[in-house]
Amino acid sequence: MKTKGCLYGISLGPGDPGLITRKAWECLQQNAVWTYPKRNKKSDSYAFNIAMRAGLELPTEHQALIFPMTHDESKLAKHWLASAQTVLEYLQQGKDVMFLVEGDASTYSTFGHLARTVQSLDEDVELNIIAGVPSFHAAAARIQTPIAEVDDTIAIIPAGYGLTMIENLLKNFDVLVLLKVKPLLNDIIDLLKQKNILQHASFIEKAGAPEERVVDDVASLYGEKVNYLSLLLIKNPDRVRGEMIRGCRKKTVSE
Amino acid sequence: MKTKGCLYGISLGPGDPGLITRKAWECLQQNAVWTYPKRNKKSDSYAFNIAMRAGLELPTEHQALIFPMTHDESKLAKHWLASAQTVLEYLQQGKDVMFLVEGDASTYSTFGHLARTVQSLDEDVELNIIAGVPSFHAAAARIQTPIAEVDDTIAIIPAGYGLTMIENLLKNFDVLVLLKVKPLLNDIIDLLKQKNILQHASFIEKAGAPEERVVDDVASLYGEKVNYLSLLLIKNPDRVRGEMIRGCRKKTVSE
Repeated sequence: MKTKGCLYGISLGPGDPGLITRKAWECLQQNAVWTYPKRNKKSDSYAFNIAMRAGLELPTEHQALIFPMTHDESKLAKHWLASAQTVLEYLQQGKDVMFLVEGDASTYSTFGHLARTVQSLDEDVELNIIAGVPSFHAAAARIQTPIAEVDDTIAIIPAGYGLTMIENLLKNFDVLVLLKVKPLLNDIIDLLKQKNILQHASFIEKAGAPEERVVDDVASLYGEKVNYLSLLLIKNPDRVRGEMIRGCRKKTVSE
Repeated sequence: MKTKGCLYGISLGPGDPGLITRKAWECLQQNAVWTYPKRNKKSDSYAFNIAMRAGLELPTEHQALIFPMTHDESKLAKHWLASAQTVLEYLQQGKDVMFLVEGDASTYSTFGHLARTVQSLDEDVELNIIAGVPSFHAAAARIQTPIAEVDDTIAIIPAGYGLTMIENLLKNFDVLVLLKVKPLLNDIIDLLKQKNILQHASFIEKAGAPEERVVDDVASLYGEKVNYLSLLLIKNPDRVRGEMIRGCRKKTVSE
């Protein structure tokens, strides 16, 4: 007999309801409890909106959970605990809980915090994570430019690490995906211009959502306030190759 | 009047038919021409097999295209051209062509080569790329470990770059995704053991396919011949943080 519900991490993809996987879609038809993250009581839930745009029917029980945008750890811990307790109550009633997230549940998602906190309260809780399409892969499809081919190397970082880090990564990586570019955009534009690779950068905001915006002329964004859900995809054709040790090498390099 | 067909890059996800997106699924119902990559005439097509396992009905016209596993550029060019000509013929008959790929069509996929070669023969050909779930995101869901959270940095590289590169990346990255680990697996195990992070590595082969294999005790793979479609997901809890410049910074670092 099943006594406890299962906690599902349901990835909805970056915004286009067509990018929801068949498995996630099936999970959302089962009239299980839906939960979804919100920044605060008054804000919208991006994940919930994807499900609504998809034409999915709301289940009998559904509830927003607050995940504030802050680096204040005590504030975060308080909200994670409250969310986990809400979820655990449903689970202990034998109900499955679907936690809806945009993008992929394992990639810069609030699902990890929720799952960890729930399992810290009750280690027997079972998880089921349905993988999804992350925003940067949808962005690459949208601009019809491969993220990576053959031997390419990819770095994905929140842009907040700053210009020195970005500059260093250009030595080793063919592709940089810079997330949350908003506060640093002007500086990054200057850096890419100076490196003469600005023409290889694309800006994508809310990939797949109705408000999606793709800007190939990244320089035109200088001075503009962009959305939080925006990224830069930078190809780096100048990287010096030749370090690659082909798959068939026979010798050990170091030990 | 539509005179020419459209070339679709149809991402099928890493192997589990449930991870096909609704949009890709819809595209595959239209009785358009299916094409799919194979390494040689006798080999199976991994992408085609996903579609078959999904229970999709074969369209009237379908054809394998050969993409050999080689670094010989003249051999590659010859086969890419042959594949592109086959596809172009269909397109010029006004037929849409679906090119089926495993994972995501923009991420280490043969679709980029095909699309480029087709457009080099006829620049008017329209592309439509349906993004999908890449293997490493499905792998993270499978092992219930987030790829990245909050300010984490991710590097994705073919393992063939070698141990020095891998060792260097551990300084700047919280997560390493090493693809095609087969020829270097023993050396990588030695390196991770030496760095005392082998316990934070997971090995995943053919994520989502019936032959999927997940190995948490990576040391146990020492000396074993693993599949080509295998990867290591390495968490790096020892990375020195503190370089992060929070999103709210006000000053320019360099110019």
